[in-house]
Amino acid sequence: MRSLESIQVNLISPFNSLQVLITISYTAKTHVQKVVEELDAPKSGLIYLRGFDEPLYPYSDQGPPFRQQRHFFYLSGADFPGCAVTYDIPRQELILWIRRNDPRLSLWYGTTPSIDESKSKSDVSDVRYIDGLTAYLHAVLTPENGGGGGPLYVLSPDQLPKLSPSPPQYSFFKGMHGSASRGLKIDTTSLLPAIEAARVIKTPHEISRIRRAVSLTSLAHRMVLQRIKHLTNEREAHAVFEGFCISQGAPHQSYAVIAASGPNASTLHYDANDEPLEGRQTMLLDAGCEWGCYASDVTRTFPLNGKWTKEGEEIYKVVERMQRECIDAIRPGRLYYKLHLVACLIAVEELMKLGILYNGTRSEILARGTVAAFFPHGLGHHVGLEVHDVSGRERLLLTGSTVSSSGVNSQRVPGFQEPRRRMKREQVTPEDLAAMYREAMMDRDDVEQNVVGPPPPYKGRQRLRENMVVTIEPGIYFHRPYIQSFFLSNPDHAKYINTKVLDKYWDIGGVRIEDCILVTKDGYENLTTAPKGKEALKIINAGIPGFGGDGQAGGGSS
Amino acid sequence: MRSLESIQVNLISPFNSLQVLITISYTAKTHVQKVVEELDAPKSGLIYLRGFDEPLYPYSDQGPPFRQQRHFFYLSGADFPGCAVTYDIPRQELILWIRRNDPRLSLWYGTTPSIDESKSKSDVSDVRYIDGLTAYLHAVLTPENGGGGGPLYVLSPDQLPKLSPSPPQYSFFKGMHGSASRGLKIDTTSLLPAIEAARVIKTPHEISRIRRAVSLTSLAHRMVLQRIKHLTNEREAHAVFEGFCISQGAPHQSYAVIAASGPNASTLHYDANDEPLEGRQTMLLDAGCEWGCYASDVTRTFPLNGKWTKEGEEIYKVVERMQRECIDAIRPGRLYYKLHLVACLIAVEELMKLGILYNGTRSEILARGTVAAFFPHGLGHHVGLEVHDVSGRERLLLTGSTVSSSGVNSQRVPGFQEPRRRMKREQVTPEDLAAMYREAMMDRDDVEQNVVGPPPPYKGRQRLRENMVVTIEPGIYFHRPYIQSFFLSNPDHAKYINTKVLDKYWDIGGVRIEDCILVTKDGYENLTTAPKGKEALKIINAGIPGFGGDGQAGGGSS
Repeated sequence: MRSLESIQVNLISPFNSLQVLITISYTAKTHVQKVVEELDAPKSGLIYLRGFDEPLYPYSDQGPPFRQQRHFFYLSGADFPGCAVTYDIPRQELILWIRRNDPRLSLWYGTTPSIDESKSKSDVSDVRYIDGLTAYLHAVLTPENGGGGGPLYVLSPDQLPKLSPSPPQYSFFKGMHGSASRGLKIDTTSLLPAIEAARVIKTPHEISRIRRAVSLTSLAHRMVLQRIKHLTNEREAHAVFEGFCISQGAPHQSYAVIAASGPNASTLHYDANDEPLEGRQTMLLDAGCEWGCYASDVTRTFPLNGKWTKEGEEIYKVVERMQRECIDAIRPGRLYYKLHLVACLIAVEELMKLGILYNGTRSEILARGTVAAFFPHGLGHHVGLEVHDVSGRERLLLTGSTVSSSGVNSQRVPGFQEPRRRMKREQVTPEDLAAMYREAMMDRDDVEQNVVGPPPPYKGRQRLRENMVVTIEPGIYFHRPYIQSFFLSNPDHAKYINTKVLDKYWDIGGVRIEDCILVTKDGYENLTTAPKGKEALKIINAGIPGFGGDGQAGGGSS
Repeated sequence: MRSLESIQVNLISPFNSLQVLITISYTAKTHVQKVVEELDAPKSGLIYLRGFDEPLYPYSDQGPPFRQQRHFFYLSGADFPGCAVTYDIPRQELILWIRRNDPRLSLWYGTTPSIDESKSKSDVSDVRYIDGLTAYLHAVLTPENGGGGGPLYVLSPDQLPKLSPSPPQYSFFKGMHGSASRGLKIDTTSLLPAIEAARVIKTPHEISRIRRAVSLTSLAHRMVLQRIKHLTNEREAHAVFEGFCISQGAPHQSYAVIAASGPNASTLHYDANDEPLEGRQTMLLDAGCEWGCYASDVTRTFPLNGKWTKEGEEIYKVVERMQRECIDAIRPGRLYYKLHLVACLIAVEELMKLGILYNGTRSEILARGTVAAFFPHGLGHHVGLEVHDVSGRERLLLTGSTVSSSGVNSQRVPGFQEPRRRMKREQVTPEDLAAMYREAMMDRDDVEQNVVGPPPPYKGRQRLRENMVVTIEPGIYFHRPYIQSFFLSNPDHAKYINTKVLDKYWDIGGVRIEDCILVTKDGYENLTTAPKGKEALKIINAGIPGFGGDGQAGGGSS
């Protein structure tokens, strides 16, 4: 009796408490007020954004799942296609504009939320049908109709359709755009950075969504741990994770699930998830669902059979220490990039103890950047409406000087361009690391400085502030082609790497441990409850609740 | 013992036989030869297509999963980003052009298939690195380099990048395009219809991929039936289906899973999948995975508790008869749109027996098109690289005259435009149906005509031919807003509908039964093995193998 039920409960029962959240109204109005502040509080003007419509693949009548434009969601709370949002700055009026529900469309696609439903989901001032938008804009924007004449703030010039004014309600802008004679100022550059800056500090409501996403994700990681001994292929771990999330009402993943066994774990964004587990030591599972459009991002690495090999345990402990000490150092005022250096320093120290790095002092090796062979990405990133969320007007890790000086960064990946790097978990080359180290050396005391409130600009690098959510995700990887091409074949780095010792570690692939951390008033809160370390091993070895440790049925009937 | 294992086997064990397929080489060369025939076998020229690169959402560093451009895949068999394909018509040389594996990229994203791997997966003449493409094109296309001067066939003008020649290898075309002085003819209009025409008839290899997709999908439907009595929310059925597909190596669904309970089933493309099953009678599950880029498309409707209500069974039997008689009529030479009429005729007959339709004769009601209130979409569509696959130069159901005469089709859905309609399971308004009926009446004998080989053009409507794969998916729906807005409030239709009887059926929502059918030399083969009808009820009531009918554990230990 008990055996089936326990599986059903774990795999597919609804997690009712999660439903509570969706009845809480989204704080769109708070967000738009923050954005206006970031615009330097103009006295007049209107903010205008369009949401996404349903996407289609080229040459196809199918498309990927609908995913709302994040800046639009931030100011509206509307997660369905065909909407627009306006904010009248002097009147402080935030209006969501939605489609009417046409019975012919609802036959095919179902209904989108009504005016009343939309009002209950977000604290916008009003919700109206989008066919009234043109008249509204005329009244608010054109002096002859009593409006103030702008500025009209839009995200980018392409939000002002000029060539093909379809759907027709937007054709209004065609006449306005460039018609300076009518006195309308259009600002296509200030809004995007203002929203990105506003999004860096999360509101309590945003934190509650992230918390929910992380907690559901943590449960899904536990599901995989309980079943891992019975799985035979990476794709089954993927299936358990994503299937569980779907069953709990979180069908959208923040990013493609990474279920990498053995050497596959050395590819940072591995997502093929199609290799047998036989003969492999470890799995790196990097997966997180969305909740209410907010992301989570959690990585765990564990031995497939519940028991570490000697080398596996050694590397796990290095990463565990990197993560623990970085998390413990989190508080407002901290420069995030210095946490990255702390992680690197620990990595150098520990890899020297293991004999993988040798032939130099700790600071010599750190200054050279050689440890980036094994820890080639940034320590983490913001988490919010995007899994790699915006960092506003500052950068967490790399500054303009290190990013764009292509002479220095001989390894920069082609096509991995600046706009992408602004949010992404960043690549850190040895040159990047060396530059960061030099900068930190010149400014030692700053690490200890404790700043409350918005910090002054600091060479473009960001200090942590209360209600930021960031990941701390150190890793040690053994990616053979990368290490061979750029380190073992470069005498400047090769001299510090003992290949004889290194050879024992290739099979581990990589270890990464990643948590989502909320910066609090005087420290941090780790939002992540996915089991790690010894707790994870215990769960792997205990198996599915109600069954014996080897996954044998019988807990109930023995 | 047995209980856990049986669940594990069903949910997550690998289905090893499925792995065989990927070692069989894709028949790209056969495809390109068919395309050249459709181009009327020119003596010279080069076909050139680019595949997709990795997609990104606007304002984001994330993107939807990579999905290869289907026409490109058809001619190359390459399912990874950054490729191009060329076919030298006189030399009959099909070359796939791929990216080099850069160790910096593989650190982040893993490797794409190598030259040798790509050769083993497709019967292209050669696989080369894309950095050699420009020189190759120069040699093949420009007379001064020994080439024939074209024509250069491309899918559409945007495949000849002009504004921003990046990546640089494509900048070559910039100089060539419009340089008639150098004698290069560029054809941007013939290739797309030629590929679409070639794709209509499937090769044996293509059929084997569709067969595999349909058979995996059929198993996944069975998984849901076995578990449905234990589920409490639509999303759990979605999770069981998609989780199973992921665990079997088919993570990409051909379309969003539709797990619609009760009245939700009346929305044809319902995919919210988030409502409780309590109090609902039925589920309509329309779901199908991809295999090797080929789609499947299967719908089943069943009572959640394994027992039909009186009304539910009545409607199920109507749809069952519609489907059975249409499938039985499939053979080469058949005009597909007449099968749609057969389905409608049966629907009229049966709904008259139930008393939902009344007040007229069978042909009177059919001629008026009123039954489109309950069966508002086409009988089916092609299945191939797209779930709603191309139909070539003909149409399965609607002709130009019915599609574009907006005066006649007063109900046409706004935004549901011609390019989309060409492939999609089509909307059929009463006016469409009436027009089809009139046409069929004028050409009665034709239904019985049995044509082998390519048919002559027939008013744009398509005859079935050997090795087409089509769905037969009749349905009867009770979509309240649609029926009320366009039928009950229109006296021309309202007079035939008995609302008192109709009121008993709203709760059923809708019944659809959909199979994928291969047209064979003298009939058909139903590729679909998902249980339906009585077999489905038996499986629902038997529950998960190894457990009792109510899902109680004990099969093993009793």
